[in-house]
Amino acid sequence: MLQGFSVPLTPEGKSTLVTQPPWHYSSDCLAIEYWADPKAIAALLPPGVTPESKSAGRAFFWFLDWQFTASNDELTDPARYQYREAFVLVEALFERTPINYCPYIFVDNDAAIARGWTQGYPKKFGSVYQTRTFSAPSPAAAPLVRGSRFGASLAAHGERLATARIQLEEKVDDPSNIFNRPTVMRRYFPQLAAGRQDKPAVDELTLSLTDNLAIVDVWAGSAELAMPRVQGEDMNLIGPLRIGRGYRLGMAYSVTDLRTLKNYVRSEG
Amino acid sequence: MLQGFSVPLTPEGKSTLVTQPPWHYSSDCLAIEYWADPKAIAALLPPGVTPESKSAGRAFFWFLDWQFTASNDELTDPARYQYREAFVLVEALFERTPINYCPYIFVDNDAAIARGWTQGYPKKFGSVYQTRTFSAPSPAAAPLVRGSRFGASLAAHGERLATARIQLEEKVDDPSNIFNRPTVMRRYFPQLAAGRQDKPAVDELTLSLTDNLAIVDVWAGSAELAMPRVQGEDMNLIGPLRIGRGYRLGMAYSVTDLRTLKNYVRSEG
Amino acid sequence: MLQGFSVPLTPEGKSTLVTQPPWHYSSDCLAIEYWADPKAIAALLPPGVTPESKSAGRAFFWFLDWQFTASNDELTDPARYQYREAFVLVEALFERTPINYCPYIFVDNDAAIARGWTQGYPKKFGSVYQTRTFSAPSPAAAPLVRGSRFGASLAAHGERLATARIQLEEKVDDPSNIFNRPTVMRRYFPQLAAGRQDKPAVDELTLSLTDNLAIVDVWAGSAELAMPRVQGEDMNLIGPLRIGRGYRLGMAYSVTDLRTLKNYVRSEG
Amino acid sequence: MLQGFSVPLTPEGKSTLVTQPPWHYSSDCLAIEYWADPKAIAALLPPGVTPESKSAGRAFFWFLDWQFTASNDELTDPARYQYREAFVLVEALFERTPINYCPYIFVDNDAAIARGWTQGYPKKFGSVYQTRTFSAPSPAAAPLVRGSRFGASLAAHGERLATARIQLEEKVDDPSNIFNRPTVMRRYFPQLAAGRQDKPAVDELTLSLTDNLAIVDVWAGSAELAMPRVQGEDMNLIGPLRIGRGYRLGMAYSVTDLRTLKNYVRSEG
Repeated sequence: MLQGFSVPLTPEGKSTLVTQPPWHYSSDCLAIEYWADPKAIAALLPPGVTPESKSAGRAFFWFLDWQFTASNDELTDPARYQYREAFVLVEALFERTPINYCPYIFVDNDAAIARGWTQGYPKKFGSVYQTRTFSAPSPAAAPLVRGSRFGASLAAHGERLATARIQLEEKVDDPSNIFNRPTVMRRYFPQLAAGRQDKPAVDELTLSLTDNLAIVDVWAGSAELAMPRVQGEDMNLIGPLRIGRGYRLGMAYSVTDLRTLKNYVRSEG
Repeated sequence: MLQGFSVPLTPEGKSTLVTQPPWHYSSDCLAIEYWADPKAIAALLPPGVTPESKSAGRAFFWFLDWQFTASNDELTDPARYQYREAFVLVEALFERTPINYCPYIFVDNDAAIARGWTQGYPKKFGSVYQTRTFSAPSPAAAPLVRGSRFGASLAAHGERLATARIQLEEKVDDPSNIFNRPTVMRRYFPQLAAGRQDKPAVDELTLSLTDNLAIVDVWAGSAELAMPRVQGEDMNLIGPLRIGRGYRLGMAYSVTDLRTLKNYVRSEG
Repeated sequence: MLQGFSVPLTPEGKSTLVTQPPWHYSSDCLAIEYWADPKAIAALLPPGVTPESKSAGRAFFWFLDWQFTASNDELTDPARYQYREAFVLVEALFERTPINYCPYIFVDNDAAIARGWTQGYPKKFGSVYQTRTFSAPSPAAAPLVRGSRFGASLAAHGERLATARIQLEEKVDDPSNIFNRPTVMRRYFPQLAAGRQDKPAVDELTLSLTDNLAIVDVWAGSAELAMPRVQGEDMNLIGPLRIGRGYRLGMAYSVTDLRTLKNYVRSEG
Repeated sequence: MLQGFSVPLTPEGKSTLVTQPPWHYSSDCLAIEYWADPKAIAALLPPGVTPESKSAGRAFFWFLDWQFTASNDELTDPARYQYREAFVLVEALFERTPINYCPYIFVDNDAAIARGWTQGYPKKFGSVYQTRTFSAPSPAAAPLVRGSRFGASLAAHGERLATARIQLEEKVDDPSNIFNRPTVMRRYFPQLAAGRQDKPAVDELTLSLTDNLAIVDVWAGSAELAMPRVQGEDMNLIGPLRIGRGYRLGMAYSVTDLRTLKNYVRSEG
């Protein structure tokens, strides 16, 4: 009997990229609020997701240092399971509900790509870094205090796609009115058979479900963000026209389920 | 209108990991013939693929330096599209036809992972190297002559999964009786929705279709191959009990189509 | 006027691998106490450094996640300056003073290699990972509490050189009797001119000088350590015969100076 | 007795980054002729090297795929010894002799950094790619024929430092009037001891000596080259004002010696 949540399927299941849920995550995050061209955001939205005029192009660029574990002590194998991620969330509506939609996302780990595609995150490989907070006091420690500065960057295939910096100003006691929208993605798996290359085998609008969400140690401050134009990528189409606040926080949750909001394959049939 | 053969889908389609076929490939390859435990191979085969008793565990371990292009001059963007690959092919039968089945495969490029999953190759991220032939004469050049030595290796997440060496002995004028089986894969995309995590959305047995296949400059010689046991991988289950000939060759083909041999989802329904 | 502490020297000095001291560092560390073959340690010691019979082969294997800054806000450019490191320290004597000597060290960053060579650390490129502590509560968070498990690994060129795991048991209030020896290195720069290839231009025994050393949040526990034998490396010669305690701690210091204990070039003259 | 041409020195010498010369190299190369601001080049030259007014800012940007071997079959361990390189050579004079001076150079391998520093090449770590020529015919093969297109790129720490493309036009039968200048470098090793941080331990002007130089299969064509301005690097100061011809060639040589043209340390003494 072959085993594995994802490929490769093997008798012992030890080689599978992704083990069975629950998947547990804890992270340190930098998030930069910004406003993009609302028409550029509208052009990225999948069917059934509509622009939110009140948002006026509001988006967040996130950088995350993740630690992952499933049920086999994966967190003690950091070479295989620790990873870094960067993504954009744009504000939009799904049937009048305010949501965040994820059009671009990059990680530096193959298991994270595989889990992401399963959920609907359109992950590609990237190189992601963020300044960390260390407990041993030093000019290099970046403690969570007023005035500390953090940088972050995303590159893919040797092109710098985003660079950010924030400077902490104040602790945020209640982040619930900042980070409170559900995340919506497009789960998609193409077909290669001739004549069906424009008819994906899987094409769904999905909603991320997170158990035991914890958001801790939230700080806000001033922010810088650049998303330069490069060859072979078009994320700069939703680059910043105006930049808001920068946030530094910890976030954890578990994943055991996924909700399908729309099945584009059936609805076309 | 959103564009892209794969995620992410964007208005201009420039960020898509995979552009529309045709996909063109040219490569330099090392291939090591070896024999694994036939029971270990049998345990890896998907439904409908059966052990081939005559093969007695015969397999090939391949290392490939690939250059890829689609229709947009991708070969002049080698940072994004040139890649390296390593995989195992095990001999088996599909409905009495001799085939090669691919249970393990590694690449160092995200577009190659995405194209591979679409076809059914269970690709993971790895670090792959092989000795190259250079035209400028030197003890470092490894020319295609009797006595030249080539090495190759595969690692993933800092674990060495395979190491090989071959020494050229003679040119092979007709490789058609060595490399003549079609390649069969399992195309697989899981579901994350609770209660359906063991019911993949896509689960098919597929046959690789290659146009304009060219195999050139084939040399054969003696070979060494090691596939050590490491944490978190089980490819060593089909490690070498006996090693045959080593080959060094050039190979090119194009991909525009894929054949489905079996749809496991429907057949279960 | 060309500028730069290290190469390349340029008019603006912006490209130099290493900027002027002071260099400030803060880190999270895993350290595993172990005992190697005392004869193997003795064989690694440079002239003037002698085996310490009381130590009976005692050594520490360290894994470090470092954040670095000099005076130009380098900590906000983590893609260029954040790095990871792994090294061995073996106990020995220099003129009757108990010291730690560093025979092997690996980092994943070129500026760290350049600073290290300047001090006498024999750095090579490696891929280093350790489990991190995150503040957002989760099975993936690895908090600093009794029972938490941490893993770490070192690989170079696709060969796993060390794998470690520790499980926290108790907080160490006074680490001064554990980590209290000065570190001694061999500062070395060869000559390539024919006839002088065995006469290095620089060959000194040096002592690391650290300002504002801080060691915080020290926990001790049980430990595992493996240092397998691989092709092209001989660090396994001082692999573990017996394993002691594992430690998890934070460490910070600054570097502005270096002491030369012995100049092997002059003393040969 | 400790062994190794470079650090680390060990009893068996197996861990040394660099083994004893002779060092043998063979490569495929792209080289782009261009003209930079002559004042920017002049500002980069070390003492005793003077601008060449006839050159009017002429420089070459090189991309190289290298295979290396010393005397221990290193070419069959490509994970450790195969590497890629990119550098600039600017035309200048040393005591009226036309030379090429190397102010910037990047490689993706630690042994190559160590050999380079020993010679005087100011190597840093970079990610380098070039389109390759494959023998199996395909739109992806980039054969050495009129019309073939090659791309190349250099990135460091996630910033793209150079991007080039060439299109082959004609074979060059006699490249001796194109690539005929000796290469001059600055061999430099700093001191960290307080008070001597501006007095390097080694500071020499050196001349590269190459045995058995072979330059083969030279093609010339049209070329593009961009060297964008990025944070933390100043190579763009000698970016292209005008671009000349592009070249694609094979090159091999061996290294056993180095000539010192000037010793800046003694001359200052």
